[in-house]
Amino acid sequence: MQSPGDTLQIDAHGRLKHFLSIEGLNRELLVNILDTAESFAGVGERAVKKVPLLRGKTIVNLFFEPSTRTRTTFELAAKRLSADVLNISATTSSTTKGESLLDTLRTLEAMHCDMFIVRHAESGAAHFIARHAAPHISVINGGDGRHAHPTQAMLDMFTIRRQKGDFSSLKVAIVGDVAHSRVARSQIHALVTLGAAEVRIVAPRTLVPPGIQSMGVSVHHDLRSGLRDTDVVILLRLQNERMQGALLPSSHEYFQYYGVTEEKLATAASDAIVMHPGPLNRGVEIDSDVADGARSVILRQVSYGIAIRMAVMSMAIGSHAAADRGDD
Amino acid sequence: MQSPGDTLQIDAHGRLKHFLSIEGLNRELLVNILDTAESFAGVGERAVKKVPLLRGKTIVNLFFEPSTRTRTTFELAAKRLSADVLNISATTSSTTKGESLLDTLRTLEAMHCDMFIVRHAESGAAHFIARHAAPHISVINGGDGRHAHPTQAMLDMFTIRRQKGDFSSLKVAIVGDVAHSRVARSQIHALVTLGAAEVRIVAPRTLVPPGIQSMGVSVHHDLRSGLRDTDVVILLRLQNERMQGALLPSSHEYFQYYGVTEEKLATAASDAIVMHPGPLNRGVEIDSDVADGARSVILRQVSYGIAIRMAVMSMAIGSHAAADRGDD
Amino acid sequence: MQSPGDTLQIDAHGRLKHFLSIEGLNRELLVNILDTAESFAGVGERAVKKVPLLRGKTIVNLFFEPSTRTRTTFELAAKRLSADVLNISATTSSTTKGESLLDTLRTLEAMHCDMFIVRHAESGAAHFIARHAAPHISVINGGDGRHAHPTQAMLDMFTIRRQKGDFSSLKVAIVGDVAHSRVARSQIHALVTLGAAEVRIVAPRTLVPPGIQSMGVSVHHDLRSGLRDTDVVILLRLQNERMQGALLPSSHEYFQYYGVTEEKLATAASDAIVMHPGPLNRGVEIDSDVADGARSVILRQVSYGIAIRMAVMSMAIGSHAAADRGDD
Repeated sequence: MQSPGDTLQIDAHGRLKHFLSIEGLNRELLVNILDTAESFAGVGERAVKKVPLLRGKTIVNLFFEPSTRTRTTFELAAKRLSADVLNISATTSSTTKGESLLDTLRTLEAMHCDMFIVRHAESGAAHFIARHAAPHISVINGGDGRHAHPTQAMLDMFTIRRQKGDFSSLKVAIVGDVAHSRVARSQIHALVTLGAAEVRIVAPRTLVPPGIQSMGVSVHHDLRSGLRDTDVVILLRLQNERMQGALLPSSHEYFQYYGVTEEKLATAASDAIVMHPGPLNRGVEIDSDVADGARSVILRQVSYGIAIRMAVMSMAIGSHAAADRGDD
Repeated sequence: MQSPGDTLQIDAHGRLKHFLSIEGLNRELLVNILDTAESFAGVGERAVKKVPLLRGKTIVNLFFEPSTRTRTTFELAAKRLSADVLNISATTSSTTKGESLLDTLRTLEAMHCDMFIVRHAESGAAHFIARHAAPHISVINGGDGRHAHPTQAMLDMFTIRRQKGDFSSLKVAIVGDVAHSRVARSQIHALVTLGAAEVRIVAPRTLVPPGIQSMGVSVHHDLRSGLRDTDVVILLRLQNERMQGALLPSSHEYFQYYGVTEEKLATAASDAIVMHPGPLNRGVEIDSDVADGARSVILRQVSYGIAIRMAVMSMAIGSHAAADRGDD
Repeated sequence: MQSPGDTLQIDAHGRLKHFLSIEGLNRELLVNILDTAESFAGVGERAVKKVPLLRGKTIVNLFFEPSTRTRTTFELAAKRLSADVLNISATTSSTTKGESLLDTLRTLEAMHCDMFIVRHAESGAAHFIARHAAPHISVINGGDGRHAHPTQAMLDMFTIRRQKGDFSSLKVAIVGDVAHSRVARSQIHALVTLGAAEVRIVAPRTLVPPGIQSMGVSVHHDLRSGLRDTDVVILLRLQNERMQGALLPSSHEYFQYYGVTEEKLATAASDAIVMHPGPLNRGVEIDSDVADGARSVILRQVSYGIAIRMAVMSMAIGSHAAADRGDD
């Protein structure tokens, strides 16, 4: 059963229509995404890295905030599905003011585009666009403000499942600037929904959002005790701009207390894996020995990210095709 | 019979070689473009929005003036024809000075490009490029200065024909800043050539170009009387920069006298359609009630714009293929 | 036999793995590149300018220095080989500092990209990237600092072979700013390796790099005597910024002494060809009469540039495919 909020993301037959946030998606659907991604994980290793699934579909990268890395992964995923891709850099000034943004949407819809990948500095932007998009359009959230980055969270879940098999026995620590992270919220929702045994937040007091415990996590301020016996250690990227304010003393001091080194990682399970969404701030949130070490699965996350994006794109466009055919 | 000036756009067998301006094209050719677009109008609604007509052709978006919207429509049209597209943003400073522009053309020709879509701030730029291009190149004018924007005019004609069937009984009003519009000149030529019963210009005195009556139009300065009994109301976009000079008092005052509202539209025929090239300045040249109302065909114009661009692209490249085969 | 340095560019079976510089490649391999380009030279003239050789491969234009012209030629070559292309403009500030660049490479590798086309303002950047790239990646140097621009040099060799047949009897003059040219070094290596009878440098003293004679060239400071009896005249582009320093008096004076005119060209062989990598500075290093004259092969160089890039791209990716199959 989906919660009432899901009617935006899920159609009447339980199919994924938009992919906006992990919140509101049930376990079955998350597992379905992971299983679909499994079928795409091998495509990147073939000689011909293309499947014809979305041939003749038009996918628009609608980026209101620049992000070469995220744009690149969605563009690659779309091209490997044989879709046509349009890259549009929408400046916030000209298009986010109410009706003007809607006119932009209406225009792209009239061109018979099939999907918008939305990246926006404001929380809720992708939901706003999905609510106002024409029925034939799917919207994928490529990161909105501090709110959500659901494809990043799902590629993390895919990585964990590939490395650890099952979630039910796992202790997971999320380490770093949870307060300003669009990824952390999505990760917590996904881990809780997939039934992880324990989810911990490890961060200085200034970087823990108030009331986070209500999401089903415990909070630690000491790195060594926070990592104790964990199977999965997920690091967050520390945004440089945070360190210029009053929230943090210096990147050097941050590294001293919260930077993950092999020595501090010693309290985790011996087969623990270390994850990071990239790009890395080496010597700030992560030591190079850890980033390049045997327990790091950071580059596998990148590979799996293409498979996850291929999965949600093909599922979302597939839901429209199924609706057109009258499937139920 | 084509006028002597047509030898640039039309080849010896009457086929469209370049598409630079409506001026100089006869009725038969305009109807041919509309009929060809008709065959593409359904492609955008198919599951696979692609036809293989221009596979292996190279189309260059050669934009000397930025325009995301126009660039996007041509890029989409080219991709749906299966062509390869190169986007080149040519800064005016480095390439418009005489020989330097010609060297750019020669270089792209030597790379075996097949078509240039030219957008330029100077009137006549597309003609200049067509006159100096190699015989195997087709040039499409994507808007040059205040001179012409012929694909916009033809998508307008396509929209009118789809909604109204025949031109011969139609009264058409073009409302707004005719003096600075590249679209209006192209629209007037097209409407007169296609045999519209009456074409009116409705604008304040400061925005009517001198001698416009010689193009076969009547001039109105009052909106209500200008719209009386019209079947088609074409609004022009008011460029913001015009309102900073002495030509116009303020956008508020412009709206009061020339902004089209449901109330002012009451003098038009009850089944009149309202058109606008976009993007809309809501509350300036058009009221939201009209823009989003039942008589607005603004979004259909956008859809048809892809079909028209596919039509002129395939016709122009086809003329070269026919010439190569020695067809006559 | 390859010199020890070649192990980076050449695999154990003598196949081209990366294409970084002419230096270190033997005559057999250069001839192999020219022969392969010969097979692609006709593709640009076909109705369908595409071959399916690299379908499903992902090629990244990784440009740390902007260059529309070079980016365009590689993009076109990749698309005509049916590859998918990603354009990434990497700003020097964020990615060239040691590990950060390596993290960018690791990330693109994890996305299963197959080839990087590298353009960089620093000499040696392409070699650095090739040395640190994963085994499945090929690197093509698209110009690095003052060091090398090997695809430009090879398209020049292709042009010479097409026009003159054989290198062994040729007298070749390279005229202009050799000191700051990434192309000149590559050209000299290629000409010497392919057995040109004589290679001359013609330049003012301030623009001749010290010790250039050790590369097997003679140095001339007088244009007329430098061009005497030459079969091939290769002009270099004079960078405008050079003329602002103390190295050169003015572009006017440069033209007077080193600008190639029909009159100064009179000492060359009557069937000499004139080459230039573009873009031209007309009236500085070359007179328009020469650039547009019967002996100019400048536009053919551009055409052949696509064929050469198709050749090195397909050879480099082919070497990996062969290695995967275990060919020897």
